[in-house]
Amino acid sequence: MSLTAQYDANNIFAKIIRGELPAIKVFEDDEALAFMDIFPQSEGHTLVIPKKIRATNFLDADPQSLAVLMPRVQRVAKGVTKALSPDGVRIVQYNGAPAGQTVFHLHFHIIPIFEGAAVKRHAGEKADIATLEALAEKIRAEM
Amino acid sequence: MSLTAQYDANNIFAKIIRGELPAIKVFEDDEALAFMDIFPQSEGHTLVIPKKIRATNFLDADPQSLAVLMPRVQRVAKGVTKALSPDGVRIVQYNGAPAGQTVFHLHFHIIPIFEGAAVKRHAGEKADIATLEALAEKIRAEM
Repeated sequence: MSLTAQYDANNIFAKIIRGELPAIKVFEDDEALAFMDIFPQSEGHTLVIPKKIRATNFLDADPQSLAVLMPRVQRVAKGVTKALSPDGVRIVQYNGAPAGQTVFHLHFHIIPIFEGAAVKRHAGEKADIATLEALAEKIRAEM
Repeated sequence: MSLTAQYDANNIFAKIIRGELPAIKVFEDDEALAFMDIFPQSEGHTLVIPKKIRATNFLDADPQSLAVLMPRVQRVAKGVTKALSPDGVRIVQYNGAPAGQTVFHLHFHIIPIFEGAAVKRHAGEKADIATLEALAEKIRAEM
């Protein structure tokens, strides 16, 4: 099988980029957008997506586009870390549904880890929006 | 707490880079080295590390060094995918021991996912070296 699929310009992240769907944003520039995962695996779970790249995942992205994206993933990860003071941070990226991918637009998960708090399953329970807004405000203040 | 720690030039990955410890390599250039994880979470679990960067993790790496590293992580991930035809691939990076980091030299995990096969715990059971050598040979042939 192939892990690369046809890019669907109507996936939900593409719609967020175009402003057709809402998102609780923490960072945006010409190249990347970061926003709260509404099905968080932990408090502060944030996603970073490229805005210009029509890639379903990490494997089919243009290598140079990854070079542009990753310093932005780092910048957001540092902001999340400064804002929430987790005990650890996981950077996770899924390729293909069997690996856990649910939206087929390249994205990186930033998952803060807090000792004593279990990490929830991926794409599990929907978070309270007001709680996410408050977390996003803290993160934006540190970006 | 801070997630950034003093870089220890005698960590095991630094020793692998200097040739003081063995590794089952699948890729190497001036910037990066990729080798089989000897405690694999799945068949083909491969690590990619920067050779020049003295960073303990993703958060304390120079942003430009990430721009150099990530296309190489992708290259190895594509090689692993082509060689082993997994159903999915996870790219994972841990910052801080509570997040699962065990070696404090920046590294990315490439974890092939095979439907029906459980993903083992991180840093768990040591693999058979001959099995890893055979997997590495397959991956090298596709790089």
